[in-house]
Amino acid sequence: MTHTHKIAILGASGYTGAELVRLIAGHSGMEIVALTADRKAGQTMGQVFPHLRHLDLPVLKRIEDVDFSGVDLAFCALPHAMSQEIVKDLPVDLKVIDLSADFRLEDVAMYEHWYGHPHYAPELQKMAVYGLTEFYRDQIANARLVAGTGCNAATGQYALRPLLAAGVIAEEDIIIDMFCGVSGAGRGAKEAMLHAEVSEGTHPYGLPAHRHTSEFDQEFRKVTGRDVKVMFTPHLMPANRGILATVHVRGQAEEIHNTLTQAYENEPFIVVLPIGQAPATRHVRGSNFCHIGVVADRLEGRVRVFAVLDNLVKGSSGQALQNANLMLGLPEIMGLEQAPLFP
Amino acid sequence: MTHTHKIAILGASGYTGAELVRLIAGHSGMEIVALTADRKAGQTMGQVFPHLRHLDLPVLKRIEDVDFSGVDLAFCALPHAMSQEIVKDLPVDLKVIDLSADFRLEDVAMYEHWYGHPHYAPELQKMAVYGLTEFYRDQIANARLVAGTGCNAATGQYALRPLLAAGVIAEEDIIIDMFCGVSGAGRGAKEAMLHAEVSEGTHPYGLPAHRHTSEFDQEFRKVTGRDVKVMFTPHLMPANRGILATVHVRGQAEEIHNTLTQAYENEPFIVVLPIGQAPATRHVRGSNFCHIGVVADRLEGRVRVFAVLDNLVKGSSGQALQNANLMLGLPEIMGLEQAPLFP
Amino acid sequence: MTHTHKIAILGASGYTGAELVRLIAGHSGMEIVALTADRKAGQTMGQVFPHLRHLDLPVLKRIEDVDFSGVDLAFCALPHAMSQEIVKDLPVDLKVIDLSADFRLEDVAMYEHWYGHPHYAPELQKMAVYGLTEFYRDQIANARLVAGTGCNAATGQYALRPLLAAGVIAEEDIIIDMFCGVSGAGRGAKEAMLHAEVSEGTHPYGLPAHRHTSEFDQEFRKVTGRDVKVMFTPHLMPANRGILATVHVRGQAEEIHNTLTQAYENEPFIVVLPIGQAPATRHVRGSNFCHIGVVADRLEGRVRVFAVLDNLVKGSSGQALQNANLMLGLPEIMGLEQAPLFP
Amino acid sequence: MTHTHKIAILGASGYTGAELVRLIAGHSGMEIVALTADRKAGQTMGQVFPHLRHLDLPVLKRIEDVDFSGVDLAFCALPHAMSQEIVKDLPVDLKVIDLSADFRLEDVAMYEHWYGHPHYAPELQKMAVYGLTEFYRDQIANARLVAGTGCNAATGQYALRPLLAAGVIAEEDIIIDMFCGVSGAGRGAKEAMLHAEVSEGTHPYGLPAHRHTSEFDQEFRKVTGRDVKVMFTPHLMPANRGILATVHVRGQAEEIHNTLTQAYENEPFIVVLPIGQAPATRHVRGSNFCHIGVVADRLEGRVRVFAVLDNLVKGSSGQALQNANLMLGLPEIMGLEQAPLFP
Repeated sequence: MTHTHKIAILGASGYTGAELVRLIAGHSGMEIVALTADRKAGQTMGQVFPHLRHLDLPVLKRIEDVDFSGVDLAFCALPHAMSQEIVKDLPVDLKVIDLSADFRLEDVAMYEHWYGHPHYAPELQKMAVYGLTEFYRDQIANARLVAGTGCNAATGQYALRPLLAAGVIAEEDIIIDMFCGVSGAGRGAKEAMLHAEVSEGTHPYGLPAHRHTSEFDQEFRKVTGRDVKVMFTPHLMPANRGILATVHVRGQAEEIHNTLTQAYENEPFIVVLPIGQAPATRHVRGSNFCHIGVVADRLEGRVRVFAVLDNLVKGSSGQALQNANLMLGLPEIMGLEQAPLFP
Repeated sequence: MTHTHKIAILGASGYTGAELVRLIAGHSGMEIVALTADRKAGQTMGQVFPHLRHLDLPVLKRIEDVDFSGVDLAFCALPHAMSQEIVKDLPVDLKVIDLSADFRLEDVAMYEHWYGHPHYAPELQKMAVYGLTEFYRDQIANARLVAGTGCNAATGQYALRPLLAAGVIAEEDIIIDMFCGVSGAGRGAKEAMLHAEVSEGTHPYGLPAHRHTSEFDQEFRKVTGRDVKVMFTPHLMPANRGILATVHVRGQAEEIHNTLTQAYENEPFIVVLPIGQAPATRHVRGSNFCHIGVVADRLEGRVRVFAVLDNLVKGSSGQALQNANLMLGLPEIMGLEQAPLFP
Repeated sequence: MTHTHKIAILGASGYTGAELVRLIAGHSGMEIVALTADRKAGQTMGQVFPHLRHLDLPVLKRIEDVDFSGVDLAFCALPHAMSQEIVKDLPVDLKVIDLSADFRLEDVAMYEHWYGHPHYAPELQKMAVYGLTEFYRDQIANARLVAGTGCNAATGQYALRPLLAAGVIAEEDIIIDMFCGVSGAGRGAKEAMLHAEVSEGTHPYGLPAHRHTSEFDQEFRKVTGRDVKVMFTPHLMPANRGILATVHVRGQAEEIHNTLTQAYENEPFIVVLPIGQAPATRHVRGSNFCHIGVVADRLEGRVRVFAVLDNLVKGSSGQALQNANLMLGLPEIMGLEQAPLFP
Repeated sequence: MTHTHKIAILGASGYTGAELVRLIAGHSGMEIVALTADRKAGQTMGQVFPHLRHLDLPVLKRIEDVDFSGVDLAFCALPHAMSQEIVKDLPVDLKVIDLSADFRLEDVAMYEHWYGHPHYAPELQKMAVYGLTEFYRDQIANARLVAGTGCNAATGQYALRPLLAAGVIAEEDIIIDMFCGVSGAGRGAKEAMLHAEVSEGTHPYGLPAHRHTSEFDQEFRKVTGRDVKVMFTPHLMPANRGILATVHVRGQAEEIHNTLTQAYENEPFIVVLPIGQAPATRHVRGSNFCHIGVVADRLEGRVRVFAVLDNLVKGSSGQALQNANLMLGLPEIMGLEQAPLFP
């Protein structure tokens, strides 16, 4: 590696920020030169996240105190709505990957509809590329601003995009049930996310329509050229990491399996299991892998497509790093080759 | 209480057996006079289940050593396939509630199809009553042999039976995703149920068609007079107790909610939440309650019906006790009034 | 039951308040007539704690809106420091059980030392009785104000009090390691208690000296007439309920076991296991039981005494109810006979 | 890397075997050429451990079918007692790291005392080196056979060895309480390790004297030249990975902290926290790090030393890989630099 790219992480005190640090620590072509966290400015990363205490990292500072000259790429892991304000003031030649929802929806009216306030950076939105790596590789490689996808949205799309593109499933009858680990809710202190509230049980959340539904609407329209409206129901599961999408479709299992197998045959991180096998979230924990399974139902023409990934890696920070590799001209899998951690 | 009914529990070393003991310990009209466990004969219940050590209980013995004279009712919590052999040799005047799958399917050919061996007690099967209390109350009260339902089967039926009976949902398009705690798999030592395998993740199981599907087929045909075949996908969740059924139906949410509300308005243990609210498994833990919620989707005509219960209580041992109360002429809710344990 | 005692619960929106409601719901001699929660006034208990939604309970109100005439006893489940202010303004003839730390320390200077502010109700402190039922039964029965013990403090005392009283262990060399479920930290939204922070691991907390140490100091001095200073180290464990005290003492195991067995032989809720057996927190979950085990070490004169209880029951709300029974002249075990919930 | 060392893993179907594969997959100087698992011979690693399915690995075979020519080093992750039989038949020039207890105790009489059967390979025992890397580096580098330490034994020794060597604590009064994740019990199907048995609680195990006590005895005698007998009490905690040792010693906290800080200042994986801070198991999860904390008690001369590590990494497979690097002349930290996985 002749050149080491200089990286800033804005909003490093949340789980996705910490996960970026963890992954980049094992990446030989990047160096973290700035970390920000407004309320925790002045602290070390080891104080905020003791599992990272062995790393030699810059002290946390406020965004306004960062010198971006020499920085090649910034990851923006800030809360929703704040990214729009921050990113528009960043240097125009700085490559940016935003992990929030702020730049995912191309239509700013749709953004306002789903997120409840006007878009604060509509000009920037025009140049943002949707960050689902496998389907936007070229645009991402050339982008200045990439919008990381929702973790739920990524999981559902891995199961469905090739099927919609190939026209092997009925578009009007797609049902997605999703089971999501708690880290997706972030590190903010909320009663509903206490261990005593969450452990030892499950429940649906985000009803009647979770915001990630908007990404399905946008992307499936782009894939098919038509409105494809899915029924999406997320559930919280008592696990720190992991998402399972159980997707019910109408079609033929073999055709569906073949379509997925072919679509992903050259993908380094998407694994299609043998037909009839179902994946498990624990088998991708801590890794950038997505496992997909196809299991026919006893009912003719009814098929389940399962997809699992780690919401903090392939669903968020790992995806971001994969995209950063593309934007910086590095090998796409660099820093992402860790095997999952089981048990 | 002038009379105390004498109770035997056959197969007391499993989770449903222990749960029966726990519940009956707080029941003022029953006394446990015999407990069996073949491989653990000679041990006390406190040795096998230390949480019950404070109770004054008979020592575990082998079934052949039980004197059934004077016993009013036997709960049979034996493994599948063994109950058929055992129950047919019990005294003919002994009331029996079987918690296994052995007597759930009226058609012995169906039993053989789903369970892989001929029915060993086809004559007994003819007199068995399906034990879903709210829908078979009178038959249960007069039965000699009641077949406890599958815990998954019960959860799904609570969500669907009134809707199918009232004809307010499309019969041909019902999808049930279920999330099931680990105690449903029993106390047998299996690699797949180790803490290290199960905690911190989820996965589907029992595919392509879980055996409890057979109960849906049988019962929904009885409700409608027609074949109603649902798509059923169970998932294991890392919690000891609890089942959540997420049922996707076509219909109108208000009509569905009204139908369920009316159907269950006099039921002591079935609670229909206000429309738009979803239940959580943790809110019924350790209790005989079933909570049901109805949440419309954004898609016109698409509705989710959620049902939660504790698989060891309302899904198994609590149901059995409720049925025993009916069979013995006791108040139906006796011994079942404990509030859920949260957190 | 000819008379039903009228009960108020002040601070019903926390875990100990909810647990009081759960227990009293099964108590035939008490009726809840008032529930308070300042920030949640106007809500039903079912909104705040959906597991209690089946109960017919008064709506939550503010304390100043409660009419205490006719109320026989108030449980005060308010945050530390607030109880002192509230209790001093309650009617003088109202019996009160306070579950906070506010009235546990007889010496108000010690209170200030450990809790960091002057005692706000020193006159009331003089009449407060320390609520460890088994050791203060008579005083509790005649008290107007009972101070519920710390949950950790109770667990350690059950292991040690009889041994110190009998002089069978060395007073100067007692080490208590404790493992505490998360519900002891309450329902307040704190980053450190999020599921993602707490699950799948353990760590010590409350160092160098947890506040419950002050109760050990006070009580062991009362037992022995001398200063007995223990080394106490609490650890958080990823479980909702339960405390395990592992107490290292110097003495003879048989003598220790005999002493404990005799001390507790008539106690309805304290179970001393056969010598050499260790208890488990899961075997007392949801119950008012405390299990105690004595296991000699290979080193001559070194013995472990283990005690387990459910912090929300025997360590808090169950203890309070047991004391309320005494104060109201009811059978001591009323409403507390539920068997533990396992698994 | 000009040379890639060829590696065999005997007993690859257990957790430590899988963890070796996970770690070596990211090691640029090693290649796995043989994997064995007697009962699962013929299966792929991906069938036995789906989290490793993306790796290109040899199919599992029986040990007798392995061609050891060309193999540089074998990891032996077999059950206790079996390793002695297997290792003695391996080629004499094959370097071996055994992860079982079979070669940890230098005195074969002690082995028989603690493990209940005669040592089956006493000649081999004479050449075995105890594998606690930081303290046996030179011997390990030159060894043919290294005995991996017990995971509990490693954790306790990291806290204590430098203190005993420096004479800064009292040798006769050392108490170790340990909290151990479930993966330490292996992947064997045992009722006691089911999720429903283990989750949501804790209990002591292995009493009155856990076998790892023998390693403390042996090693502390070697450090001090005297018998140093500690009191050791392990507890099971409901977490998949991680061990916390809470060690109570007599000494001065600052001196203890200084001693540890100096002892480990050049160690790549041992981190001594600032005085007064306690570590958490979750902050080393999945990594080869050991975090150590020193916290004085309020009692003069009483100090707690805490040590945490991941039992499957630093406590077992990571330690083994670190030793393999030494034995093969590779950089010691190769393949072990992954940051912990949190949350």
